[in-house]
This record gives sequence, structure tokens and C-alpha cells, in this order.
Amino acid sequence: MENGGGEIKWRFGGENEKITKAGKITIRGILDILKCSLDSNDDRTVIPLGHGDPSAFPSFRTSEVAEDAIVDAVRSANFNSYSPTVGILPARRAIAEHLSRDLPYELSPDDVFLTIGCTQAVEVALTVLARPGANILLPRPGFPYYEARASFNNLEYRHFDLLPDKGWEVDLDAVEALADENTVAMVIINPGNPCGNVFSYQHLKKVAETARRLGILVIADEVYDHLTFGSNPFVPMGVFGSIVPVLTLGSISKRWIVPGWRLGWLVTSDPNGVLKKTKIVQSIMGCLNISCDPATFIQGAIPHILENTKADFFNKIISLLRQSADICYEEIKEINCITCPHKPEGSMFVMVKLDTSPLEDITDDMDFCIKLAQEESVIVLPGTAVGLKNWLRITFAIEPSTLKNGFERMKMFCQRHAKQ
Amino acid sequence: MENGGGEIKWRFGGENEKITKAGKITIRGILDILKCSLDSNDDRTVIPLGHGDPSAFPSFRTSEVAEDAIVDAVRSANFNSYSPTVGILPARRAIAEHLSRDLPYELSPDDVFLTIGCTQAVEVALTVLARPGANILLPRPGFPYYEARASFNNLEYRHFDLLPDKGWEVDLDAVEALADENTVAMVIINPGNPCGNVFSYQHLKKVAETARRLGILVIADEVYDHLTFGSNPFVPMGVFGSIVPVLTLGSISKRWIVPGWRLGWLVTSDPNGVLKKTKIVQSIMGCLNISCDPATFIQGAIPHILENTKADFFNKIISLLRQSADICYEEIKEINCITCPHKPEGSMFVMVKLDTSPLEDITDDMDFCIKLAQEESVIVLPGTAVGLKNWLRITFAIEPSTLKNGFERMKMFCQRHAKQ
Repeated sequence: MENGGGEIKWRFGGENEKITKAGKITIRGILDILKCSLDSNDDRTVIPLGHGDPSAFPSFRTSEVAEDAIVDAVRSANFNSYSPTVGILPARRAIAEHLSRDLPYELSPDDVFLTIGCTQAVEVALTVLARPGANILLPRPGFPYYEARASFNNLEYRHFDLLPDKGWEVDLDAVEALADENTVAMVIINPGNPCGNVFSYQHLKKVAETARRLGILVIADEVYDHLTFGSNPFVPMGVFGSIVPVLTLGSISKRWIVPGWRLGWLVTSDPNGVLKKTKIVQSIMGCLNISCDPATFIQGAIPHILENTKADFFNKIISLLRQSADICYEEIKEINCITCPHKPEGSMFVMVKLDTSPLEDITDDMDFCIKLAQEESVIVLPGTAVGLKNWLRITFAIEPSTLKNGFERMKMFCQRHAKQ
Repeated sequence: MENGGGEIKWRFGGENEKITKAGKITIRGILDILKCSLDSNDDRTVIPLGHGDPSAFPSFRTSEVAEDAIVDAVRSANFNSYSPTVGILPARRAIAEHLSRDLPYELSPDDVFLTIGCTQAVEVALTVLARPGANILLPRPGFPYYEARASFNNLEYRHFDLLPDKGWEVDLDAVEALADENTVAMVIINPGNPCGNVFSYQHLKKVAETARRLGILVIADEVYDHLTFGSNPFVPMGVFGSIVPVLTLGSISKRWIVPGWRLGWLVTSDPNGVLKKTKIVQSIMGCLNISCDPATFIQGAIPHILENTKADFFNKIISLLRQSADICYEEIKEINCITCPHKPEGSMFVMVKLDTSPLEDITDDMDFCIKLAQEESVIVLPGTAVGLKNWLRITFAIEPSTLKNGFERMKMFCQRHAKQ
């Protein structure tokens, strides 16, 4: 044990395999690789079509009501203390009322748990569900934070496909085939990330009935709730809470364009109280008891933000997203190596299929994205990052003029790399 | 697999043993029990001597500079985006400069990782150090969040004593006896929670030399840094970073009296780069990659808060704490069933020994605290919550007049329960 003179033998350190394994594929990690590929000699602005955060663009600035609410909460000095682990009651009540407007039953404040953005809601849900031997069903393409957190919690995950030819609906036959007696839950993301689809009422009902038949709960990631601009309106999964218990995950990040504020929620949409009877609620509270909380004054601003944000603000954002989704869809048609199977109707993304065969020297989606960053200063996420090799996820939530500019550069890129 | 008519067999749920075990003893859990014991028919104000959060008292209101910095950051709309996982550079740089003032070397922004209060800094440190078979040495009495997070990460913990007769210094012989080849780190909390002690330069140096001999790193929880008012000045453990690598944990929660703002840090105080060589830094970044971040605009306010808060504000807080620590120490002498082995010199707490022998019907510290809450509406934390049965942790960080009132009630309580 003695460490006298000479070299010290430190007893800590070495690779932490659990962390390495969990963090193998993250969107942030791949975006970092792309950012490192940018050419610093290129004087043009970098066009970010890789991630869902338009908050830096002036047109997407959050509502004044939301800023005022934060300022008032800070100035009141009433929210400098630690918060209860489940969140402060006025915020929980406001969220319950806010979400109940779209449901056939009333949520109670006790159904609502405040989280640090939707990210922590995912973390808590998967931590609570992890048991030795359990498995969870995740969508492909999906949002890799689910895989990362499942892996970190030793929760086995199995992928069901979203079907591009059916508007990215869930392959419910695959769900039935994958599930066994150790399956505890399935995840849906609606409006869809990365596909930009919006599930119909009928399809969501089928999801609920399938999950009920299998005895599993549904985690409904609705972080893009109400950001829809196609034919399907947004229907919360909680509408089917009496068929199957639902954990609804959400946040103000996307609808209010403030992902940096880190305020989200995990909600038990479960009028029959199944999640209480099965001790899931108890585990959620236990997990929050040993976790961090969102800043108290941001919680304090929530009632004001949810109740007083004007329709004008939401309409402006929806109209911007519709306009840029249209541009995106039309521009994709102009580029022969990418095709879009389904016009985006919600969220901030679209998935397009990459065909490398007309290209001279592009091996796959990752190669495409790295070279596109290098040569054109355009960042696009390779489908590999969301589980679909040789696809691309394109964000259209940016200023329309910048978006057009991005597609022009992409077109030049593809022409330059076209086989002769 | 079929769930047709009749009772559904849900495949999720049941007790989550990992969460239950980790959350068995938490300060919040025990305070909840005490709050439930309060008599709602008692018209007197509840006097909270149980937790370290004086932010609700007018005298402890945070500095206007800090409030202004938050308001400016929100109004700028420059901090609504996602933050990098390690935190934004201006905040990391400001914290590096702030902490370097007390060190014999310069920290770099790369040494600083922003966290959601000190809580997440503890979480990250213990997650990173957890490996199969590893163990960590924790102080007794201590801060039970360490035990909770170690348990959650399957990191074995072993307790060394703090010695009341030596001003709560670390029992270094016990540290040497407990450590083996699987020991990775030891934790110190300075200024002390729960003991209110402040380690001398000489003692900290011995801690560093012991840890070096054992080949383990030191986690220095300095969340109460600079809150000292006795003979020992605050010395950061990082001063000895060239003897042994130190993970310094801190936050603005206590010094600026804003625990609800959730802004802290984990810093590698390690001029020899041992933590980089041993891949601890890589694991910290990996862990933050799959974790939540503090709100970006609070990060954005940090440079202004650290650079512009006036000495007047800190002096006022220190003077208030000194005054209330004095009251506390004098009042304890007036109550015959509690004794204070060491006058508090820092933080917001003092540990006092409970002697139940002169009391008629009080069995132990938990019983004392429950009955005190019931009968006198005074909340005090039983020592059991911090690892020492039949001790009490008393917070003196409240308005002096309220503190005096609390001790009067405690005195009446003890007189009423005295053996005849």
C-alpha cells in the first residue's frame, strides 16, 4: 500500500466502460465531429441543419411573456430556495391544467413531476423501469438519448421500425413480435423526431390497444407537442390513458423555443391509477429524491408562461415552420441523390434517403455529412446517428432564407460529386 | 401473452430496489417526516433549524448584482439555446479565475465543468469513480447524498470518523486502516457540514499526504467555501493539488444564498494532470454528455455575478452568520440535555450531543425531533440523518431573533420532559 518516493500508483481511473458504452452514439458527439470538419478558411456562414434549436435566429425569439415571467420571478426573490423534489405546486398545477385541455379527463397536480427539460424526464422514466432482465421497445429511427440512458441503466432495448411508406407509422406487428414477458414499455415520439410525422388519432389508438394487449406502458415523448402544420392535428397519447397507462414527457423547450431554460415534465396520464398501484409513481418520487431539480425561479415562472402566452406567438412559429418545411420539401426534389418519402407535418425535422450511387466519391451518410461540412459549411445529421444508415436528418427550423441558402450549397455539393 | 378481457397483467412495476435502497436515508425524507409531525393547531410560526437554506429570510436575500445579472442574461436572448455539455466557456473561464485567486497555480477553463448545483457535481464524481469492486471513504457525520449516490452506483462506501474532541478533524489513522487496493477516493466537506468546523492548512496538508500515500484522490466538497467566521480561514483543498489530485465541488448556492438557482461546478484541481492521464477527465466528459445541464442563461450570468458582487454583501452575510453562531453556542449551554463539543466556525450548522438520561420520555434523537416538532413547531435534524445517532444538527443560518425564539422553545420542551 505504501506510496513513498518515485512513481505513485494511483488506484482510481482507467476507462469507465459503463459511461463509454452509454455515450457511444450521441447526436452531440456526431455534431462535434462535423463541427471539427468545418473549414475555417471558408468565409461563408455555417448553416446549421443538424439540430433542433432555432433559438439563436431572431425570427424564433421566444415570447416576451416568457421573458417577463422569468424576470418577475427573479425580482420577487420568492424562488431562491430549494424546490421540493417533485417541483413546486403552482407549476405542477399549471402544467396539469395546461395539458388537461387536450384530454378527456382532468390531470391532478400530483400527476405532474417537474424535470430538467425533457432530457431528465427520459432519464427518470428509464431509471424507474430498469429492472434485472427487463427490456424496452424503442423506435428506429429514433432519438439516441433513449439508447444511451437504457444502456447506462442496464435496460435492454429492442428496435421496432417506423415505416416510411406509411407516413412513418409504428410497425405494430414488429412491436408484437419483439415483446416478451420481460418487456415493460414502448416509446413513441410524436410529433416525430427525426421523421417530422404526426400520428393520427386512429394510429395512436392502435398503439394503445397493442400496448394493453402486451401489458406494457407507453412512454409518449411529446416534446414537440402542438408544433404541427399538416393534415393530422396533434393528439396527446394521454387521450388513450384509460386503455393503457401513459408516461407523457414534455417541456417548454420547443414550443416556446427555449431549450436552454431546462424546464420539462414527466406526467402520469393514467386515469385508472395503474401507475400508482404498480408502484411506478413511488419509484418516480424515489428517483427524483436523489436527483437534481430545475431552477426554482424558472418553475415559479411557469404558471405565467403557460397561461399568458398569446396565440399570436404560437401562430407565428407554426407559420414559420410550415413555410420552411415547404421550402425543404421542394428543394429536396431538386437534388437527385436524396428523396423524401413523407412531407414533414410536425416537429422541426425531416428524414431523407441518401442514394450514393450517382455520387463519385461518397461512401455513406457519415462521409456525405463530413464532406458537406468541410466543403460547404453546412451541417446535416447523418441518419446513422438516429439509427438509419444512408439517410439524413435535416432540420428546417431556421430562417427560410438561410434554409434556401443551405440547399443551394447542398445542390452544388452533389453536382460537384456526381459521377461523370 | 394475450391480454384479452378481464384483469390485465401489467408487466412493469413493483418496487425498484435500487432506488429504494439509495433513497433509504435522505435529509429531505427525514425533514418530511418532521413536517408531517407539526401540529396544525399551533398558531406559532414554524422555526426551521433543520436545513441549510436561509434564502427565505429577508436579511439573507441575495445580492442585487446577482439578480441583475440573471435579468440581463434573460433580456439579452443570447442564452436561450442548449449549452455545451461541459458548460459555456465564459462561465467556465470566470469560475477558473475566481477559484485561482486562492490557489498557488492557475486553473484553466478546461478544468471547470458546470453542474446543476453541487448536487450534480457529487453525482458526476461518484458515477465516474464507480467501477466493479471499487470503494470510497466517506466522513461520519457527513452528508447522506454521498451515501445515496454511491449506493445507486454500486460503489461501496466505508466511513471514517470526524473527531469531535479534535475540532471534528478527520481520523487519519482510520482512513489508513480502511483503505485497500480497491479504494479510489476520500471525501472531505470543508467548511464542514454538518459540524460547522473549518479545517486548518496543516490538517488539510496531512489529508493530502495521506491520500497520496494511499494512491487515492480527494473529493473536496467546498459548497460552503468562504463562509467562515472563526480562527481558521478557508483554505481550498486545491492548494495541495500537486500533492494529490483533487476534485473540487462548489456552487453559488450558499455564498450567494441562492440554492434554488442550481448552478455549481466540478473542478479538477490537479496541476500535474493526473486526472487527465488516468482518464478521469474523459469519464467526466462522457458522463456530462448523457446528463442534464444547468439553465444556459444562469450560466450566462455567472461572469457578472462572480466579478461584480460587492464585498459589502459577503461581509453582511458573514457577520450575520457569526452573530447567529454565537447565539447558538451560548443558548446550547443553557439547555442541560445537549452539549456542543466545538463552537461552529463556518458553514451554517453545528452538531450537538443529545443526552436523553435527564429526560423522562425521550428515547433517542429521532424521538426528540419528532416530539419537538409536534409540541413546539421547531424543526431540528436528528443526527441519525447524518450518521450520528443521539446527536442533533442545528442550523443557525436564520434571522437571529427567530433563532433565539427557537432555543427558548427547545428549553421549554426539555424542561417539560425533564425527569422529576
